[in-house]
Amino acid sequence: MSLLVTGSIGIDTVKTPNGVSENCLGGSAIYFSMAASYFSPVRFVGVVGPDCPFVLEQVFAGKDVDLAGLEIREGSKTFRWTGTYHEDMDNRTTDHLELNVLAEASPKVPKSFSDSKFVFLANTAPNLQLELLEQVSEPMFVAADTMNCYIQRSLTDLKKLLKKIDCLIINEDEARELTEEQNLIKAAQVILDMGPKAAVIKKGGSGSLLCGVNGEKFILPAYPVEDVIDPTGAGDSFAGGFMGYLAQKQKEDFQSLKEAIAYGTVTASFTIAGFSLKGLESISKPDIDKRFETLRKITSF
Amino acid sequence: MSLLVTGSIGIDTVKTPNGVSENCLGGSAIYFSMAASYFSPVRFVGVVGPDCPFVLEQVFAGKDVDLAGLEIREGSKTFRWTGTYHEDMDNRTTDHLELNVLAEASPKVPKSFSDSKFVFLANTAPNLQLELLEQVSEPMFVAADTMNCYIQRSLTDLKKLLKKIDCLIINEDEARELTEEQNLIKAAQVILDMGPKAAVIKKGGSGSLLCGVNGEKFILPAYPVEDVIDPTGAGDSFAGGFMGYLAQKQKEDFQSLKEAIAYGTVTASFTIAGFSLKGLESISKPDIDKRFETLRKITSF
Repeated sequence: MSLLVTGSIGIDTVKTPNGVSENCLGGSAIYFSMAASYFSPVRFVGVVGPDCPFVLEQVFAGKDVDLAGLEIREGSKTFRWTGTYHEDMDNRTTDHLELNVLAEASPKVPKSFSDSKFVFLANTAPNLQLELLEQVSEPMFVAADTMNCYIQRSLTDLKKLLKKIDCLIINEDEARELTEEQNLIKAAQVILDMGPKAAVIKKGGSGSLLCGVNGEKFILPAYPVEDVIDPTGAGDSFAGGFMGYLAQKQKEDFQSLKEAIAYGTVTASFTIAGFSLKGLESISKPDIDKRFETLRKITSF
Repeated sequence: MSLLVTGSIGIDTVKTPNGVSENCLGGSAIYFSMAASYFSPVRFVGVVGPDCPFVLEQVFAGKDVDLAGLEIREGSKTFRWTGTYHEDMDNRTTDHLELNVLAEASPKVPKSFSDSKFVFLANTAPNLQLELLEQVSEPMFVAADTMNCYIQRSLTDLKKLLKKIDCLIINEDEARELTEEQNLIKAAQVILDMGPKAAVIKKGGSGSLLCGVNGEKFILPAYPVEDVIDPTGAGDSFAGGFMGYLAQKQKEDFQSLKEAIAYGTVTASFTIAGFSLKGLESISKPDIDKRFETLRKITSF
């Protein structure tokens, strides 16, 4: 079923203990779309400046990603991020940030995308996420991500957004900041009280937690990867596998959400095995399915 | 089947964000024995000074813990530990430590315990762990714990010990320090190369990892507890549930080890719900079994 993503396209420079990748393709919509495309056709909405050195038609060649929502905005510049990962690979420092086109008006959702049923609103200002969502006529399942700066600066808009979405997908620090709860089970409950019927809290190398509005819980470790090269995009790839699976299955019951978490987990495990899209772009659906079954095996007792 | 534990008995003062517990009963052998007693009879070996204010016969009244190996050493003093937990409850600082009797000769294993089949050597100097193990004639499955100070100061003895045990149970920081590997899957492999056929790495609130010598892996999240009062003794209770289950089942195959990890996990979840033994001593085996089934449910997909 139709899956729409709105999010960033970035020029990233990433430093990890394993090396440096300069001016490589990044951004939430990029990782999300590549991950989700293994499960479902993807409708892509994002904006860059004319300086963007990447041809997304080539990046997504052979993948079912519809770029009708890609805008190349004259007179603007592409988003840039430079970051350094610490030894444990779960924490990173932003060294340099140029919002550029992301600080301007959001791109439009094309008319041909307005009937999308599954929607992922990647990280941007909550008022823009709301604006983008309004352009989709009757979505069936909407998930969104947010981050610390919006929790701090745009809490009113974020709370408005939370009343209009089905699922919030955020990392543990953000969950603690948003809810002022240290305990993640309690934090998830506070998020559910704010509106969504499902809360997903990502814990990096320690896996993730899913809580449902009827008291359902699901906890899953990360897929064990021995050689983590670059964690950039892991969270967006997780969201891509998660939403892609739901769109493919056309379901949103808790059992499907659990399976989607597992698919998100294994999809992200490919992303972190290389810089930029290297780990994720070269795999096949059977590779994902194989890790899905391995994950089931190594977490069952 | 017979389960022997050697470990510490302590007078603890614990500060957490939830309050302070002064001069309460602690120590690895105490938590281990209380936890394991829900699964199997326990043979207890430990030593205190005459200053110890706790009567262990009363502490373990109604539990199947044989205190024939408890020594009250004249002229010595009981081990004391004072520590403070940080906000996240996964990290703590030792404010004050008096090894006292733990810095002296280890207690003797009574003759009546020398035929024990399952043995847990809790944290102490590796040469003392070796000495204690030599007093058991034909153990079937031996597990041990260690800690940073022995990795730093007694590595030669620790490596000798690792060749004589079946399973090492340590926390993630210790695993990284012992193996000089940041990645825990690789760290577990290095531990296995040192001798044991199973390596258990505890990750606090993020669960645990079990690796077997034939490449088997098992990863389990922690049981979700909303109100963590005091994490002291969680690791020893985990080991108690783990070893208690194996001794009860009289098996050591990988499937049994996986189930034992799950039993260790849920047993520890009771310990952290109160100071000292409060959370652990008042439960029943059906309480543990119920959480075991819940853990299976919330980790399955």
